Amino acid sequence: MGLERKIGTLPRGKKNNICDVTGLKVAHVTVDGAGAHTGVTAIIPASGDLFDQKLVAGVSVINGFGKSVGLVQVQEMGTLESPIVLTNTLSVGTALTALTKYMLDKNEKIGRSESTVNCVVGECNDGRINDIRGLHIKEEHVIEALEKASDDFEEGAVGAGRGMICFGFKGGIGSSSRIVRFQDKDYTLGALVLSNYGGKGKLRIEGKRVPVPSNEEDKGSIIIVIATDIPLSSRQLTRIARRSSAALGRTGSILGSGSGDIAIAFSTAGRVPQSSEEAMESFSVLHESKIDKVFEATVEAVEEAIYSSLYHAESMYERSGKKVCSLREMLDA
Amino acid sequence: MGLERKIGTLPRGKKNNICDVTGLKVAHVTVDGAGAHTGVTAIIPASGDLFDQKLVAGVSVINGFGKSVGLVQVQEMGTLESPIVLTNTLSVGTALTALTKYMLDKNEKIGRSESTVNCVVGECNDGRINDIRGLHIKEEHVIEALEKASDDFEEGAVGAGRGMICFGFKGGIGSSSRIVRFQDKDYTLGALVLSNYGGKGKLRIEGKRVPVPSNEEDKGSIIIVIATDIPLSSRQLTRIARRSSAALGRTGSILGSGSGDIAIAFSTAGRVPQSSEEAMESFSVLHESKIDKVFEATVEAVEEAIYSSLYHAESMYERSGKKVCSLREMLDA
Amino acid sequence: MGLERKIGTLPRGKKNNICDVTGLKVAHVTVDGAGAHTGVTAIIPASGDLFDQKLVAGVSVINGFGKSVGLVQVQEMGTLESPIVLTNTLSVGTALTALTKYMLDKNEKIGRSESTVNCVVGECNDGRINDIRGLHIKEEHVIEALEKASDDFEEGAVGAGRGMICFGFKGGIGSSSRIVRFQDKDYTLGALVLSNYGGKGKLRIEGKRVPVPSNEEDKGSIIIVIATDIPLSSRQLTRIARRSSAALGRTGSILGSGSGDIAIAFSTAGRVPQSSEEAMESFSVLHESKIDKVFEATVEAVEEAIYSSLYHAESMYERSGKKVCSLREMLDA
Amino acid sequence: MGLERKIGTLPRGKKNNICDVTGLKVAHVTVDGAGAHTGVTAIIPASGDLFDQKLVAGVSVINGFGKSVGLVQVQEMGTLESPIVLTNTLSVGTALTALTKYMLDKNEKIGRSESTVNCVVGECNDGRINDIRGLHIKEEHVIEALEKASDDFEEGAVGAGRGMICFGFKGGIGSSSRIVRFQDKDYTLGALVLSNYGGKGKLRIEGKRVPVPSNEEDKGSIIIVIATDIPLSSRQLTRIARRSSAALGRTGSILGSGSGDIAIAFSTAGRVPQSSEEAMESFSVLHESKIDKVFEATVEAVEEAIYSSLYHAESMYERSGKKVCSLREMLDA
Repeated sequence: MGLERKIGTLPRGKKNNICDVTGLKVAHVTVDGAGAHTGVTAIIPASGDLFDQKLVAGVSVINGFGKSVGLVQVQEMGTLESPIVLTNTLSVGTALTALTKYMLDKNEKIGRSESTVNCVVGECNDGRINDIRGLHIKEEHVIEALEKASDDFEEGAVGAGRGMICFGFKGGIGSSSRIVRFQDKDYTLGALVLSNYGGKGKLRIEGKRVPVPSNEEDKGSIIIVIATDIPLSSRQLTRIARRSSAALGRTGSILGSGSGDIAIAFSTAGRVPQSSEEAMESFSVLHESKIDKVFEATVEAVEEAIYSSLYHAESMYERSGKKVCSLREMLDA
Repeated sequence: MGLERKIGTLPRGKKNNICDVTGLKVAHVTVDGAGAHTGVTAIIPASGDLFDQKLVAGVSVINGFGKSVGLVQVQEMGTLESPIVLTNTLSVGTALTALTKYMLDKNEKIGRSESTVNCVVGECNDGRINDIRGLHIKEEHVIEALEKASDDFEEGAVGAGRGMICFGFKGGIGSSSRIVRFQDKDYTLGALVLSNYGGKGKLRIEGKRVPVPSNEEDKGSIIIVIATDIPLSSRQLTRIARRSSAALGRTGSILGSGSGDIAIAFSTAGRVPQSSEEAMESFSVLHESKIDKVFEATVEAVEEAIYSSLYHAESMYERSGKKVCSLREMLDA
Repeated sequence: MGLERKIGTLPRGKKNNICDVTGLKVAHVTVDGAGAHTGVTAIIPASGDLFDQKLVAGVSVINGFGKSVGLVQVQEMGTLESPIVLTNTLSVGTALTALTKYMLDKNEKIGRSESTVNCVVGECNDGRINDIRGLHIKEEHVIEALEKASDDFEEGAVGAGRGMICFGFKGGIGSSSRIVRFQDKDYTLGALVLSNYGGKGKLRIEGKRVPVPSNEEDKGSIIIVIATDIPLSSRQLTRIARRSSAALGRTGSILGSGSGDIAIAFSTAGRVPQSSEEAMESFSVLHESKIDKVFEATVEAVEEAIYSSLYHAESMYERSGKKVCSLREMLDA
Repeated sequence: MGLERKIGTLPRGKKNNICDVTGLKVAHVTVDGAGAHTGVTAIIPASGDLFDQKLVAGVSVINGFGKSVGLVQVQEMGTLESPIVLTNTLSVGTALTALTKYMLDKNEKIGRSESTVNCVVGECNDGRINDIRGLHIKEEHVIEALEKASDDFEEGAVGAGRGMICFGFKGGIGSSSRIVRFQDKDYTLGALVLSNYGGKGKLRIEGKRVPVPSNEEDKGSIIIVIATDIPLSSRQLTRIARRSSAALGRTGSILGSGSGDIAIAFSTAGRVPQSSEEAMESFSVLHESKIDKVFEATVEAVEEAIYSSLYHAESMYERSGKKVCSLREMLDA
């Protein structure tokens, strides 16, 4: 049962992670010590001024038991205008403040000659491992992650994934990518997940159940970020984000009541300007009859990203002292 | 209190009805006799094969106490691929069958080499005036309306509007249009309503209450069709359809629980092909920073279309024998 | 790979089909001959007058490429007030007319002293096997199915399932049920599916891919009906309906663009009266902290119902003459 | 044109503000000086531990150009489990952090033996009057407002309303209430708004336009909080929240593209426990046939609350030095 095995049939990108989408950058800041086992993961979706030149985007609230910030405006306007920051649930306020300051710093027009900015922060509850009530994430952690983002990043129990638990195993950050070909041109779709969901004993890898003794409810959450360079409308990106639920089902999830399962998808092809002298803009978008290939890539990449988060995470201990096993270590044993 | 007075500040189109949008055609078939006071109104949104060359569209379910057909697919795919037929609630099945046959007749590929077709039928309950349980609408009425549609049509108690009641007055079909200018080019937005909503004594015309003795609840429904030649995305057209609720509020509606208030908006600018050899298509769409002018036009045209439906309807009698007054006749008296 | 094998861990009901929910009745009318290979399946959700005494219900439009009727009002009002009729896509109008007449016949107040009725019709496109353009379903087929509904019914290529194709195999009607225990009391949840979705070669049974030579896109649709006697609110039933997407994912679906994947869930515990002299009504509902068990039952029952539809369907031929294999026959060979 | 005149026909509550709903408390902290003209308004929806004993709630995103926090979980779970804090857009992160700390302080189980908490923060952009980039709101302002909340509060340019502009006039906090009678029992519904929307020259008071020279687009936002002691389900409260759009329409709004128009409605009748040993809970809810009276109360209270916010606000100056007139002062002049 190879956690590192490729899921599905479409080819992977070079790095097999979300940074295969050109221009996208990721960084983690991991915060450990004094009860803290948490962190921040920052995703810069594309180069340039995101507020002035927005990305087309869509959101799917697969299960809304979640405290993510910024989703409502993405749904209404169909655009993403900030980096995406991931962290623990109780630190969303801090992350939002830091991300707001980062955006104000990048663009003087925000809140002056132009409107305010919609910042996106995603979260999962790492309270079983991390002293989440201690609010150990500080604004500087968020800024640091944003500043150092690059096209190379680790997976597993790092950054926002530090204290996450997935199907009773150690979860965290995972990523994967797929290549989709249209008319002799290759496009890339990448997924990054923060995995913290799934009942103990419910995990399936390619349909095969992974045996664990006891059963627990499907708690926690998962944040799913999907990036692509395929030209797509916000309606299409919303449809793509919604396909994540099929991937979750494959891994054994029942979309548990207490699991905030949120997917956000964006395209780096074609930017939407904040203001425009021209009344009309031209856009290129994929014809709907070709979109199933993108759905396939999405389901494969999200499923593989989840397994990858489990594969890369080492064992850790809950605050109660109970061990949270690394799935890889268990499989290797 | 001039019902024929222009609402708002934007200029009207030439005919001041939905047919100011070039290519759009409307026709009524009114069915009277033997307890029947009902009918069909058909709207052909644009010329050409609608299935092969769809229109971009959006829907707003303002209040979902309604039995309209075809909304779900418009929301998902963002396209309209059939005429819109309006009739009474219990005749929706008949109208759907007739419209389906009409579409099969127009395009041999439907249900053979291509998928099936999504037909849109809107409805209101005319049971206080019409013997609605008698199911007096026949398929031939629907086909006749579709076949004879033209760019000239009557308003008032005709077609699907025959038996409708609005704020205790005789309601029915109303229409209006507005001109919106972007970069020295004039665009048109038109609205057509089938008005059957509103509590007795709640009507306001430009904010002024129209006095009627007794009070009744906000029953019935309204179907709102918004057409434009402005290039817009389905997300934008959904936003436009949602603005109808502001117009309803202005006329005195509280969006009553038993009122199926449904708006559908489409653009005739740029068609979406059913199939395409090209993977990518180019679209022109309005920059979001300019859309408030379209919202303004929508609210004005919908509000005026509602008043126009009241203005054009003559008095009729309920099945119980009670008179349903024409607002115009009352104001003239 | 046992298609008849139980999926998951919860116990099945006695019949292992949706009729384990007391009071629920199902019947098929299959229409064969002269190019017709289609039919009608009627589901009577509970005994008594459904209009006067409605059921609490919820809907999930997993993918809205579908022409089902009646969903919008279920979403708004949270109630189901008619039987559910399933048939082929182009016969929805006929089914709606017949179901409307059936309801008018059952209840004289509809459209007279009370409002009109919201009828629910679900559909899939059986055009590859059935001469769908022939419109072979007549109103009497629908009435017959409604009249003869009982607590015993067949699965496979019968009724509305007659001409359906699922993952390249012969699909159709499937059903399953689960027992959920709360505080020493057993409750039942049942699922019935009309399966017509899934790309050829994409089927997985308990995660294991079923090999078929060629690949085709995920076309067609699935209608999923979920019934239970657990007391639930419409919000909870909407959540339950949404869990179907996880089951679809497990079977190999990517929620294809052209697949109308629609789930409707209702509870037979506690009826909602059409009218009431009392202003306030009392309801018992499941505490949200217990709902994961219901989600688990839903995902298991829907997944098993899909396999069961494949297991029970015999081989048939497409209009083109191509054989559509029975999965059971292939596995047995 | 009396801004203090009662809107509509239903009786007002004693105070004619949202505190007529028993147990509800409000407080403002206004922050002035050094370019700051902003503040915080805290609404404690009911007495007792809100996390342990939640309120049933619903949300309507009338126009999603907004950065409010906590809406997604209210929509999914149908409950409100925190106070509602209102402030300026760029201070949402700070308000969220402070509110999180307040909740952690009130309940030791959050993030330990129980899940994390969903905090609700609403916002409008006061950047034309306030130095919004200065982030002048500190956590202590939020805590102070929460701690000092009482059943007595001011309206106008106070708290979160300090720097708001509405239809070109000085906006801010407004409130109103209505009494609704069911079976000889009086119930109360109250609305509180943070008004910051509406194009200059578009205001209508009871339908009559208020003349102002220049025209500006419908920018800014409005947050609408609706409280009641009527027993209602989350589906019903969602419907109630959605009726706010009719009230906005009456005041002259077109639901402008850049206006984050968000309504949240909750009932204080009957609490939802965080955990329960009993599987089933009993609830009393209003029969749907009586809900129009609640819709009427909602539209009246929201409309009047908006006028009240204008009536109570004194003139202030934009950062540019331009005067933002008090509507009352203008009418009195």
